[in-house]
Amino acid sequence: MVLERAKKIEESGAYVYHLELGNPRQPAPREVMDKTIDALQQHAVGYTYSAGHPTLRQAVARRFSKHAGRPVTEANVAISPANLLISQFLELACDPGDRVVFFTPAFPTYWAAAAYVGLDVVSVPLDHRSGFDLSHRDVETALAANPKAILVNSANNPTGAVYSREVLEHLVGECERRGIFLLSDETYAEVAYSKPFFSVSRIPSRFALVMGSFSKMFSIPGFRTGFALGDPELIEKISLSTSTLISCLPVFTQLGAAAGLGVLDTYTASVRARCAAAVANCHEILRGSNALSYGVPVAGFYFFVDIGATGLDDMSFAKRLLEERHTAVTPGRSFGAAYTGFVRIATCGRIQDVLEGTRRLAAFADSLVAEGARVEEPAR
Amino acid sequence: MVLERAKKIEESGAYVYHLELGNPRQPAPREVMDKTIDALQQHAVGYTYSAGHPTLRQAVARRFSKHAGRPVTEANVAISPANLLISQFLELACDPGDRVVFFTPAFPTYWAAAAYVGLDVVSVPLDHRSGFDLSHRDVETALAANPKAILVNSANNPTGAVYSREVLEHLVGECERRGIFLLSDETYAEVAYSKPFFSVSRIPSRFALVMGSFSKMFSIPGFRTGFALGDPELIEKISLSTSTLISCLPVFTQLGAAAGLGVLDTYTASVRARCAAAVANCHEILRGSNALSYGVPVAGFYFFVDIGATGLDDMSFAKRLLEERHTAVTPGRSFGAAYTGFVRIATCGRIQDVLEGTRRLAAFADSLVAEGARVEEPAR
Repeated sequence: MVLERAKKIEESGAYVYHLELGNPRQPAPREVMDKTIDALQQHAVGYTYSAGHPTLRQAVARRFSKHAGRPVTEANVAISPANLLISQFLELACDPGDRVVFFTPAFPTYWAAAAYVGLDVVSVPLDHRSGFDLSHRDVETALAANPKAILVNSANNPTGAVYSREVLEHLVGECERRGIFLLSDETYAEVAYSKPFFSVSRIPSRFALVMGSFSKMFSIPGFRTGFALGDPELIEKISLSTSTLISCLPVFTQLGAAAGLGVLDTYTASVRARCAAAVANCHEILRGSNALSYGVPVAGFYFFVDIGATGLDDMSFAKRLLEERHTAVTPGRSFGAAYTGFVRIATCGRIQDVLEGTRRLAAFADSLVAEGARVEEPAR
Repeated sequence: MVLERAKKIEESGAYVYHLELGNPRQPAPREVMDKTIDALQQHAVGYTYSAGHPTLRQAVARRFSKHAGRPVTEANVAISPANLLISQFLELACDPGDRVVFFTPAFPTYWAAAAYVGLDVVSVPLDHRSGFDLSHRDVETALAANPKAILVNSANNPTGAVYSREVLEHLVGECERRGIFLLSDETYAEVAYSKPFFSVSRIPSRFALVMGSFSKMFSIPGFRTGFALGDPELIEKISLSTSTLISCLPVFTQLGAAAGLGVLDTYTASVRARCAAAVANCHEILRGSNALSYGVPVAGFYFFVDIGATGLDDMSFAKRLLEERHTAVTPGRSFGAAYTGFVRIATCGRIQDVLEGTRRLAAFADSLVAEGARVEEPAR
């Protein structure tokens, strides 16, 4: 609804600062675009395999072999839209009525997909005082719920946290031992800039599925192309589901993504630098406010900001910020019903807009606190 | 498995005649390709609406307003992969354990999607002596099963039948009266050449969803882009499901498809002419065989051929045809367990290949009958 109201305001001629969209503005690698266009010019518009185009599967396998420190082959890789992989995973791991654990705050699609599949969600809230890091205790809480599946997301959207190798190894080991399916959503893996990222793909497991997305990797969300890594048996099930649901993905986008993998390290180095700079600049602005509290992200481009001191809940805050300051943010409840005291800021838009929007948000929050103080005075 | 074995034979250096793939060989309209490439060159790689890009939704609405004889607006149109729409429809119409009716033979994805959603399928077998046409009696049988949903597919894959306006009106009317959800799969609507096609979109209904695919319309199966038409309430539910599952489709493919709609009539006229010619030529070959029986398709590019007289079932026939004559066809059981006496031929490949493959199939079937007669003689 924020997006629709923002559109209305824009149609009336006003300028809106968009801090609600995780839509990277960085141009995609030239290699990705050139290869995609080239494939179209060569009329690569037929069907391909449900598991994905072999060129892309092999390129992903090569990439992860290097990182995983163990052989990863085409049989460990399935291509599917990253968003769809969440439902596909839940469908194959669970039956309706089964229990799934999310560590919260959690990406909105997790909630929607769990509802779609008909699952009971057990939320394990992470401690905001530790920057929403995942602790051994959180893992124990998750396991104690005796779920069929667990979703874990490092680097995290919306908190910008990166979980430690030690805790992730513990989680994967316990899931393996107990036969719990684990989805490790590593969409933001390539944009961890101030803490080393650890991929669950490095731990052999029959129950863990790792997913990634070319959307954020190459700033091409419109390609709708992602990948899953896992045990060949799990990968076959994902491919069968892809065959049923969408048959396959376009050849040209897959060839484009494969071409990008050749320049991934150079490209993501520049994306990380850009993210880190945007986050540092926003942090400079936000820290000046006495109405906001937040952890500084170590990955990605989101701030998950506690607005509790303003006296407004997330919806009222987001609505008034949009109406009065023409700045759009995502209400915290999108990431779990408990987060009505938070909003999410995305810093991946045009940098001037991001900075101005952040200034407006901080000024708005400060004005609310000042106003609250004035309102309270007569009562004292 | 036919496809995999065919690949192996090709890898050994032999040539295989592919009559198993509904992968049109006709070049896509230049307008589609140019616009898609243009959009990529302009870097249209961001997110768009779950319901579809407004340009494409409006173009589809305009097209169907003209045909439906009543206003169709953007609110009546959702964009989603055609294949996915089958599961999306079943998910929103039914709960696990509910009953859905297919008129058989029926497209393989229907069976896979029903299994995915956990539905009980009631098959209503169409009469092959009437060319698998849909009759009032078939509709009554479907309704008597008291299903939550019915799938109907005219023009039909694999039979090439086009159902009459009168029977479809009866079906839609009864579904509306009884609150049964109806999916009208009109993927092959534009390739009806010898019987007028009637679209269910012409009948206002709260329960009917019409789906189409740009894959067959523009010979771009690799675009994975289709559309649904229906009551705004139904369309909103489809869009919500799209938002959950895949978030949205690429902007560039949608703009390409929209550009194609401007030249649709000219383009499909040439596709129809090509289909009709391929079908007529194959019919000339097949009629010469005394081992095969079939209805002549009035739409699309498939023959659903009764091979019962050969004494082989569909799997053995398909396997031996591939091994001995290097010709690949689809076994009938893909369209329903009852169709082990049939194979499907697709005539949309390279015409020389299609004709040679059809000749090989007819010769193989005749040789089986001749062999059978010889084997039987001593016993008389």
